[in-house]
Amino acid sequence: MIRVGINGYGTIGKRVADAVRAQPDMEVCGVGKVRPDYVAVNAAEAGYPLYAIDGEYAAQFHEAAIEVAGTVDELVAESDVMIDATPAGIGAENRPLYERHDTPALFQGGEDATVAEVSFNSRANFEEAADADYARVVSCNTTGLSRLVAPLSETCGIEKVRATLVRRGGDPDQTSRGPINDVLPDPVTIPSHHGPDVQTVFPELSVETIGLTVPTTMMHVHAVNVTLESEPDDEAEIRDLLAAEDRILLIPGYANMDGTGALKDMALDAGRPRGDIWENAVWEESVTLSGRDLYCLQAIHQESDVVPENVDAVRALTGHLSGAESRALTNETLGIGFERFQTRREQAADRTAAD
Amino acid sequence: MIRVGINGYGTIGKRVADAVRAQPDMEVCGVGKVRPDYVAVNAAEAGYPLYAIDGEYAAQFHEAAIEVAGTVDELVAESDVMIDATPAGIGAENRPLYERHDTPALFQGGEDATVAEVSFNSRANFEEAADADYARVVSCNTTGLSRLVAPLSETCGIEKVRATLVRRGGDPDQTSRGPINDVLPDPVTIPSHHGPDVQTVFPELSVETIGLTVPTTMMHVHAVNVTLESEPDDEAEIRDLLAAEDRILLIPGYANMDGTGALKDMALDAGRPRGDIWENAVWEESVTLSGRDLYCLQAIHQESDVVPENVDAVRALTGHLSGAESRALTNETLGIGFERFQTRREQAADRTAAD
Repeated sequence: MIRVGINGYGTIGKRVADAVRAQPDMEVCGVGKVRPDYVAVNAAEAGYPLYAIDGEYAAQFHEAAIEVAGTVDELVAESDVMIDATPAGIGAENRPLYERHDTPALFQGGEDATVAEVSFNSRANFEEAADADYARVVSCNTTGLSRLVAPLSETCGIEKVRATLVRRGGDPDQTSRGPINDVLPDPVTIPSHHGPDVQTVFPELSVETIGLTVPTTMMHVHAVNVTLESEPDDEAEIRDLLAAEDRILLIPGYANMDGTGALKDMALDAGRPRGDIWENAVWEESVTLSGRDLYCLQAIHQESDVVPENVDAVRALTGHLSGAESRALTNETLGIGFERFQTRREQAADRTAAD
Repeated sequence: MIRVGINGYGTIGKRVADAVRAQPDMEVCGVGKVRPDYVAVNAAEAGYPLYAIDGEYAAQFHEAAIEVAGTVDELVAESDVMIDATPAGIGAENRPLYERHDTPALFQGGEDATVAEVSFNSRANFEEAADADYARVVSCNTTGLSRLVAPLSETCGIEKVRATLVRRGGDPDQTSRGPINDVLPDPVTIPSHHGPDVQTVFPELSVETIGLTVPTTMMHVHAVNVTLESEPDDEAEIRDLLAAEDRILLIPGYANMDGTGALKDMALDAGRPRGDIWENAVWEESVTLSGRDLYCLQAIHQESDVVPENVDAVRALTGHLSGAESRALTNETLGIGFERFQTRREQAADRTAAD
C-alpha cells in the first residue's frame, strides 16, 4: 500500500485525492491545505486528515471548527510519495522539503520542466519515470496533445503538428480571473510555449502552437492539424484509431454535444464525480483528412484530465506496475471511458451496415 | 407505490426522475423524450424506459441504437401521476392528454398559472394542492422567493417585498441563448411578472420585482429587500431564523464562497448529483437590518431548486402524507441541507462564546 500525501488541495489536489483513494494499492495519508474555506470543510467531511502550513494557519482552522492533524512537514514525513498540487511556482519552492525527507514527489505542469528529471504522460512515456525520484505531470493542454500525438505517431508517423489552443480564462471558482469580454492572444508571440512543453514528452516531435484565452471557465478547445508521414486510407481509419484509445472520447454526431457546456452537462448526467471529463473529447465529425493533413477539434477539461496521469505517475515512480497495467487499473477504478457512446457507436454502425 | 411518469426529460425532467426514483413511496414508470441525444443515452443507461412521441421519432432512436418502450400516450396510461417537464407552453398543450387518461399531473413554472388549479410551493401552501388534480410547481425564482417569504411572514409579518432578480441567461448546455455580453432589463417594464407569480402562492403579499438578465449560466442571484411589520431584535435573530429553514443554506463568511461559481464548485465537492443546489443559498454576511428594512442576497440554482418541490407536489396531489412529512422524507432521501456548514456554524459560535 503506497502512502500518498497531497500538498495543495485546490482544483487538482482535491480531485487527485479522491482518485488516489479509489486505488486498491494506495491510500491518502492526508492533504496540505492553507485556509479553512469550503474546500477544507469538504475535505474534512470526506475524511481526509488536514495538514496546515504552520501554527498561525492552524488557528484559523480552529476558529472555523475544522480539525487539523498536523503540519505539512509531518505529512511529508509520513508519506511514501508526495503529490505537489500547489499553485504554479510553489512546487519548485517545495522541492527542498521533499528532498529533506527523502520522499519522492510529483509536480504539476505549472512548474518549469526543470523541477523534475522527467516530464510525464502515462500513454507516451510511462517507463521513463521508472528510475526517477521526481516527475512532473505535464499540464492539461500538454496532456491532451500527448494523448492525440501518441497513437498517430505510432500508426502513421508525424511530420509536424500545428495546433491552436483556445484556452478557458479561469476555473469556475476563480472569480477574479479574466478575460470577461475579450479574445486574448496569449501569448501574442508565436509559437507559444505549449509546443516546447509537448517536446518535453516527445523530444523528436516537430510541433508549433498558438495560444488564445477566451471568457469561459469550462474547458479548453484545441483546433489541431497533424501532417502525417503516411496517408491513411480514409477518415474512418483515424476515427477508429482514436475510438480505440481509452482516454479519448469520440463525441458522436447524433448526440448533440455541440459545445463544452453540453459535454459537462453530459458528464454530470453520467454521474461523474464533479462532472469531470478525464478523457480528451474529440468531436468525431471534426476528424477530417486532406491528403496527409489531418484536422480535428478536441475539448480538454482543465480541472481533471491530469488526474489519472497523477495516479499512474505514482506507480511509475514506485515501479510496481507497468504502464499498461497501471492505466488499466486507473481506468477501471475511476470509470474512465464513456463506454455508453462507444458501444452504441458500434451498434449503430452495425445497423447501418445491415440496412 | 405511486407510479410517476415524466414527460420531458431535459434540465428539470432528468433531475426530477432521479429524485422520484430515490423516494420509497414512488417509482418512475418511464420518461418521455423527443430526440436520441446524449440525454437520451444517459436516460437509457440509468435504466429509465424511454417513451417517444410517435413512430417517426422512434425511428431516430433506433438508428442511434437506443431502445424505446412505447409512446408518451402509453406512458400516461401506465402512470398514477404525470410530471410534465416539457418546455414552457407545451405543458398547457399536453393537459388534454392527461385529462383524457384521467391522470393527475404537475406542470412547471414556465406555464401560465391558469394551467392548473393551484400554484404550488411546498413550504408555503402544500395543503392547498390536496384536492387538486392539476398543480403547477412555481418557477425557480418564485420558489426561491417563496422560501424566503414564508418564515419572515410567519415571524415578523411582511409589509412589502422588493426584489431585483439578476437572472442567468441560459443553462450550461444552451449554446444559443444570450446575452453574451450585456445586462438586459428583462422585462424593461416594472414591476416584472415575477411579483405577481409570487402572489399566486401568497395572494395577500405586497411584492414588486425587477428583472435583469446577465451573461452567466450558473445561478440566478436575488437582491432582496423585505420591509417587515415588526422590527426584529437584531440581525442575528433573522440569521438564526433563516438557518433553521431546511431549504435555505446560510453561506458562512469564512468559507470563501464569494460567487455562484464557488457555490457550484462546493456542491460538486460535496458529491451532490450534477452539483445541484436544491436550497436557496443566502450569503449570511449580506443579511442586514435597517430598522424594519431587511436586506439580503441569495443565489438560486435554476436547474434544481424546484426538484424537491415536484417530489412534494406528487404527494400533495395523492394526499397520503402531510406537507411536513413529505418535506422531511424528500430532504432525507435527497440529502437536502448542507449540515456540514450548519454544524460548524454552531460550533464556531460556541468557540467564539468560550473565548
